[in-house]
Amino acid sequence: MSSCFGNTLKISIFGESHGAAVGGIADGFPAGEKFDEKEFLKMISRRRPGQKNTTPRVESDLPEILSGICNGKTTGTPVGIVIRNHNTHSGDYEALKNVPRPGHADYAALLRYGEAADRRGGGHFSGRLTAPIVALGAIARQILARRNIFIGAHLASVWNIDDRAFDAVNLERDTLLAPGEKEFPVCDDAAGILMQRAIETAAMEGDSLGGVVECGVIGFPAGIGSPMFDRIECGLGKAVFGIPAVRGVEFGNGFAAARLKGSTNNDAFCVAGGKIRTATNRHGGILGGISSGMPILLRAAFKPTPSIAKEQKSVDLKSMTETTLAVEGRHDPCVAIRAVPVVEAMTSLVLLDFLLTEKPDFLR
Amino acid sequence: MSSCFGNTLKISIFGESHGAAVGGIADGFPAGEKFDEKEFLKMISRRRPGQKNTTPRVESDLPEILSGICNGKTTGTPVGIVIRNHNTHSGDYEALKNVPRPGHADYAALLRYGEAADRRGGGHFSGRLTAPIVALGAIARQILARRNIFIGAHLASVWNIDDRAFDAVNLERDTLLAPGEKEFPVCDDAAGILMQRAIETAAMEGDSLGGVVECGVIGFPAGIGSPMFDRIECGLGKAVFGIPAVRGVEFGNGFAAARLKGSTNNDAFCVAGGKIRTATNRHGGILGGISSGMPILLRAAFKPTPSIAKEQKSVDLKSMTETTLAVEGRHDPCVAIRAVPVVEAMTSLVLLDFLLTEKPDFLR
Amino acid sequence: MSSCFGNTLKISIFGESHGAAVGGIADGFPAGEKFDEKEFLKMISRRRPGQKNTTPRVESDLPEILSGICNGKTTGTPVGIVIRNHNTHSGDYEALKNVPRPGHADYAALLRYGEAADRRGGGHFSGRLTAPIVALGAIARQILARRNIFIGAHLASVWNIDDRAFDAVNLERDTLLAPGEKEFPVCDDAAGILMQRAIETAAMEGDSLGGVVECGVIGFPAGIGSPMFDRIECGLGKAVFGIPAVRGVEFGNGFAAARLKGSTNNDAFCVAGGKIRTATNRHGGILGGISSGMPILLRAAFKPTPSIAKEQKSVDLKSMTETTLAVEGRHDPCVAIRAVPVVEAMTSLVLLDFLLTEKPDFLR
Amino acid sequence: MSSCFGNTLKISIFGESHGAAVGGIADGFPAGEKFDEKEFLKMISRRRPGQKNTTPRVESDLPEILSGICNGKTTGTPVGIVIRNHNTHSGDYEALKNVPRPGHADYAALLRYGEAADRRGGGHFSGRLTAPIVALGAIARQILARRNIFIGAHLASVWNIDDRAFDAVNLERDTLLAPGEKEFPVCDDAAGILMQRAIETAAMEGDSLGGVVECGVIGFPAGIGSPMFDRIECGLGKAVFGIPAVRGVEFGNGFAAARLKGSTNNDAFCVAGGKIRTATNRHGGILGGISSGMPILLRAAFKPTPSIAKEQKSVDLKSMTETTLAVEGRHDPCVAIRAVPVVEAMTSLVLLDFLLTEKPDFLR
Repeated sequence: MSSCFGNTLKISIFGESHGAAVGGIADGFPAGEKFDEKEFLKMISRRRPGQKNTTPRVESDLPEILSGICNGKTTGTPVGIVIRNHNTHSGDYEALKNVPRPGHADYAALLRYGEAADRRGGGHFSGRLTAPIVALGAIARQILARRNIFIGAHLASVWNIDDRAFDAVNLERDTLLAPGEKEFPVCDDAAGILMQRAIETAAMEGDSLGGVVECGVIGFPAGIGSPMFDRIECGLGKAVFGIPAVRGVEFGNGFAAARLKGSTNNDAFCVAGGKIRTATNRHGGILGGISSGMPILLRAAFKPTPSIAKEQKSVDLKSMTETTLAVEGRHDPCVAIRAVPVVEAMTSLVLLDFLLTEKPDFLR
Repeated sequence: MSSCFGNTLKISIFGESHGAAVGGIADGFPAGEKFDEKEFLKMISRRRPGQKNTTPRVESDLPEILSGICNGKTTGTPVGIVIRNHNTHSGDYEALKNVPRPGHADYAALLRYGEAADRRGGGHFSGRLTAPIVALGAIARQILARRNIFIGAHLASVWNIDDRAFDAVNLERDTLLAPGEKEFPVCDDAAGILMQRAIETAAMEGDSLGGVVECGVIGFPAGIGSPMFDRIECGLGKAVFGIPAVRGVEFGNGFAAARLKGSTNNDAFCVAGGKIRTATNRHGGILGGISSGMPILLRAAFKPTPSIAKEQKSVDLKSMTETTLAVEGRHDPCVAIRAVPVVEAMTSLVLLDFLLTEKPDFLR
Repeated sequence: MSSCFGNTLKISIFGESHGAAVGGIADGFPAGEKFDEKEFLKMISRRRPGQKNTTPRVESDLPEILSGICNGKTTGTPVGIVIRNHNTHSGDYEALKNVPRPGHADYAALLRYGEAADRRGGGHFSGRLTAPIVALGAIARQILARRNIFIGAHLASVWNIDDRAFDAVNLERDTLLAPGEKEFPVCDDAAGILMQRAIETAAMEGDSLGGVVECGVIGFPAGIGSPMFDRIECGLGKAVFGIPAVRGVEFGNGFAAARLKGSTNNDAFCVAGGKIRTATNRHGGILGGISSGMPILLRAAFKPTPSIAKEQKSVDLKSMTETTLAVEGRHDPCVAIRAVPVVEAMTSLVLLDFLLTEKPDFLR
Repeated sequence: MSSCFGNTLKISIFGESHGAAVGGIADGFPAGEKFDEKEFLKMISRRRPGQKNTTPRVESDLPEILSGICNGKTTGTPVGIVIRNHNTHSGDYEALKNVPRPGHADYAALLRYGEAADRRGGGHFSGRLTAPIVALGAIARQILARRNIFIGAHLASVWNIDDRAFDAVNLERDTLLAPGEKEFPVCDDAAGILMQRAIETAAMEGDSLGGVVECGVIGFPAGIGSPMFDRIECGLGKAVFGIPAVRGVEFGNGFAAARLKGSTNNDAFCVAGGKIRTATNRHGGILGGISSGMPILLRAAFKPTPSIAKEQKSVDLKSMTETTLAVEGRHDPCVAIRAVPVVEAMTSLVLLDFLLTEKPDFLR
């Protein structure tokens, strides 16, 4: 059991929130792919803490690429990445040591690894572990974009405020990538303003909010994916459930499909521009686990950040008595925001892996 | 890419709907486990076609166990299972050959495998491929039950009719397993009657209905699962998305968590009977990807059967002109019903795999 | 841990020597490949018990293909194969139950699986488990042969009698495949006669002989294989060590290289027919784990059959006292003979897997 | 295909010889294991360049542990290691760019990765990639030693000079570990002196020598390993073939077994000290792929270093004309020497993986 995934493109991640560094290895990128550093840094900056009111470049959080890229191109051998940890204030840790935070991995980690676990700042369970994923995913995303496969995500909802959904049938590159270019990743800026207000209010109340990230993919070739356990949903599902705080994943109209009749859920096939398409896209670009050529659409539900300043009930594990705690320290009041590029990165890695495994000549 | 999954317990599935047989191999069951044939056949009968108005035993659909069980016990070496196909009327196939059914894998399979694909009756994409999964899962479920780990599922909803949900905090064995004992797998029989009526109406209209299956697990030890990509959600998510027609998977309160605040979504820790528990169970028994000791709860959304008698728009792939089709043949008007034991089987296989990998001494 | 191997082409094997059947699944064959039944049966007959003085076709040992082949072609989905067991005389088993045969897996199997292991006839450890490997490998070998990749093996030695080795530089198809066409698989029939005499003598003495199988591959494209742990030697090495009774595996001049100087072991590059080749081929067609375009050559050492009629010392595990035993029943006096097609089959499966993973367009 | 291996303990390696760094990740070490830094550094120093006439500690080649160890103990989460590259003189590279070195991966790498490959100093094919393997293996070796499982290796031969072999039956800890404590890793120092003289002579002549490494394991519990493709030979074979320059691997008496009769190759079972043992140990501690409780013994053949100063024939790939080259730069005249701790490290990682997968309670 492990911090590794992938078939032809294998990803392996290491690190603890308050250790020396986090990092990862991606083994299987095709050789000779141009590495666009500017695009790489842009994607990384989107995940970075405090991205809203901050210069886009905080030197100390930059990944160092140790191998696999030479003269501005991938070599075909493993890419190793390290991101040093700084500003790790582990002081608050002692207070939490015996009182697990509700909704957090503290208690589970203790059961799993015992006292030896590095629990400072969440240890290996920290959201910081998504930093190397975004770095490696940024490389995958570039490789796909060069083949006109574009992957973009936005905040579909925060708490009870909904953004406009992506157009499932006529999803264009500009619309798809627009949210990622903004300071706040939504399609509809009016909804974004309401979301930000709700987040600020929650933060002031010492509370946090959940949210949903919708991710779209266009240009992905039809006919990729395999029946049974290598359906595209299996690969993406496993990977997206690997992002901390995800509680649900759905494709196309997802759970809504369960409340429909076949006659309204099925997407009629049609011919457009000499190609087979579907008139609607409730299937989210995947039929029988295989890409249909229509835009791929997935949604991931993120729970509200469990670490909140409000007082909560917990248990002192030493004395086995009930107590209360209020979590100190600055925590994102809505993890879904910074999760937007993480979902894009995971989707990029998984879809590139599918292409490398099933249709590598597409990449030539 | 493949019809295999698992870490320590590896499952491999083969077969086409109208070929000679479907079957599978499970490699990794512990040695010396009693094989309860009666319980095995009971679980299999729950998935079988026409289970509602049929004798519980249709000889021709029985799995033959070819290896791995000797003198009524597992030998520790691979269990091979074969289920012969009978009554395969492939006649209708010709009509569909060039006109893909909306919502079905036909078109995708053609893109993936070309003309060589065995498309009769859905081929390898058929729901019949879940038969060997249920057979192998039935063995896993027995092994777990012997350790007081119980896995049960029910129809949480059909179309817009909801069953009573499982009690997330005080889920008892009897309540959990009751739906599986019934002819129609629900907790609340009144809801079940409404569901059946809706299904019959849909069938008469040549239509079909979607549904949601909820699966619960009690007795699973706390501390199992691993951060990053071997979270319990990753393992179960991948496997459940491997069941045909699944469009979404969620754990605990799932997508609903995305509309909550941290203070209402977090589950307070408490002490009950000298043990750490949570007062509520919105986390669905999994924190940080690791089992918390509370009941595990997942929900899977099944789309309505795509094969319906109603006329639908499609395309003749030979002439590339739009046409219509009505799918002949008897198809389940709601695949979610027979999916109930399939979800149980998948959950059993995945959780046994986790135990074998992370805590095999629990099984001794 | 498991009876599975492979990356893109996944093989899974089940069965016990005296159970209902042995069989296997190969998941990942390309779709649309012609299935040549005659060639398939021919390869199977080479591994079959008693092939020397027997009709070439013993109906009862024929594999039944249950899926993955339709209208004489592969469908692209898993190929499931079953071979029924017949004539299983388990009577002798009781005598051996408490006295493990020297050199055999009996004792180890008992430690591994306990009393529940199906030990009749060697159970899952039996050489009979190579039957489904040969069947699945025969399909892989056909697919490769259609691309002018030919795989052949012969008995390089039996006891202290050596066959002529393959020509490492100018290995032609006819020479390579000739031993497989013969009743006794050698290059030099005079050596073959000596070998057979030695085997007959050993059999009469209640003894057995070891042997070496050399396998050659021509036509395999250059540039396949990956540094570190997916070198061609890693893949072939793992698979060939998976054949019962193999004690050593070497490539090119193998262990002999360790007794050479660099100046005599290195193969000079040269140009022949406009192509890069090497003047000699001590590297066995693999440099840095990657195919060089020269013939691939491997040798596998098989120990003498451990089950012999001669009296041997062992221990009664019940009483923990030393005793003697003489193994009854007919056993091959030299397992290396029937291993010849098994090595070919394994090599075929592994090399097809490499091609499917690294250069699938070669297969189009 | 990849630079990853392992089941429960997953190893992933990255780096190029003349890039920024080499490193790796080991995911799956048990939590709470003491990290003995002194022992760790000692093992690393054995693999280091110039270890014979050098201070035992060259700061610049020290691995930095970035994660997975906290307060002197393993945390149970991935161990990430980085070793910076220094003194990389890539000047000579240009000369070799178009003329591949005989016996080296140059030509194969070009075929595999094209012009984008980082070929400086051998790139990802360099023996330097064994440095992170030794570092991670050193941790595995400590964990095993704490359970009285000891792993040691020595130079069984260099060119035509043989060291005394390990005693296969009565292998004691001191004898096993003694070669690793010496400046030159042999059992018999007289043989070692002859070997060193031969190496010096070869070096003076611009030549190199092959060698064999023998590795022994004592204390490994009986009953570990699985039939078919997870035999101990499969796991160790694959890993040891992953070490650059290995041409053959054998267990027990290996290739010699192929020249024996069953009656002389079989090891009689006996009772000693109330335990089942074998009177001889030609099976090398593995029967049917499963550990027998006797010492495990493997031998790996290393070819002579292909990079030699002597003039050799090759081809200019640009002009496709034959030419000669003499490889500049300091190269080990016998890679087998520094391979001794690499074989120990690989063996440690593989055997720990087997224990974690099949008998993890042994580690508690």
